[in-house]
Amino acid sequence: MPDSYKIKPIGTVHSRFHTREEVVSSRADNRVGEIELFKEYADGLCDLEGLSHIIVICWMHKSSFRSLKVQPIYHPEKLRGIFATRHPDRPNSLGMTVVELLERKGRILRVKGIDMLDGTPVIDIKPYTRGDQVSDAKFGWLAQDTYTDNP
Amino acid sequence: MPDSYKIKPIGTVHSRFHTREEVVSSRADNRVGEIELFKEYADGLCDLEGLSHIIVICWMHKSSFRSLKVQPIYHPEKLRGIFATRHPDRPNSLGMTVVELLERKGRILRVKGIDMLDGTPVIDIKPYTRGDQVSDAKFGWLAQDTYTDNP
Repeated sequence: MPDSYKIKPIGTVHSRFHTREEVVSSRADNRVGEIELFKEYADGLCDLEGLSHIIVICWMHKSSFRSLKVQPIYHPEKLRGIFATRHPDRPNSLGMTVVELLERKGRILRVKGIDMLDGTPVIDIKPYTRGDQVSDAKFGWLAQDTYTDNP
Repeated sequence: MPDSYKIKPIGTVHSRFHTREEVVSSRADNRVGEIELFKEYADGLCDLEGLSHIIVICWMHKSSFRSLKVQPIYHPEKLRGIFATRHPDRPNSLGMTVVELLERKGRILRVKGIDMLDGTPVIDIKPYTRGDQVSDAKFGWLAQDTYTDNP
């Protein structure tokens, strides 16, 4: 297995968030922003019409991995294993958020629920499908989390 | 924005699939496999106890990007924009699957629902949270898809 793989940005997040604190203190229903794909990828956005939700995967360029145990942002009272949290400071700085697709205008997607900083590189967009719906999921330690948008 | 970012494997998928065709022809309830994390990341798995589902993000090492329009595997009759499909041949070879966490034994996670090839590098594991549940999602062209596990 190679030591590493290269991922290329395919677009950019436009949001009103410039710091992690601004995301945390924002209301979930107030997180409208845009995903702008680079021109060379625009044709890949066809057929998103009619999908209410998409998955945005990004490279969290302001994050950096520090430790395998982290203080969860909304529940900092106890250290948790990084892979049991959505904390941004991960071994690979991959962020993943399910967002509502409000509108597509060419290569610009207007979305609701975005929790990424302005200028964050986008590396993939996927349709939200039935396989992503788990109605009876159990959340373990995260069950205490009253936020629907929990890092 | 840099041209590219480096991601490092943090573990490996063990599954009984050696070709894409084997995945496609398998029954969803028969897709039990293991995620083995490398030793240096094992401590990050704490606190997964009690979570019924996790999100596995991998590097689909057998895939290669060819075109922004692809023939969906289960519905090849029409070309679709790559970002409106879960097709593996994407600009960045990122795979993402929600799986059921059956058991953790140290740095090995036994999971159900894995659709990745044996030997696939794992690059992130995230808890499945309330923000990933969208009960009223609309699936656009994918609504015709009777599979719950649709590439």
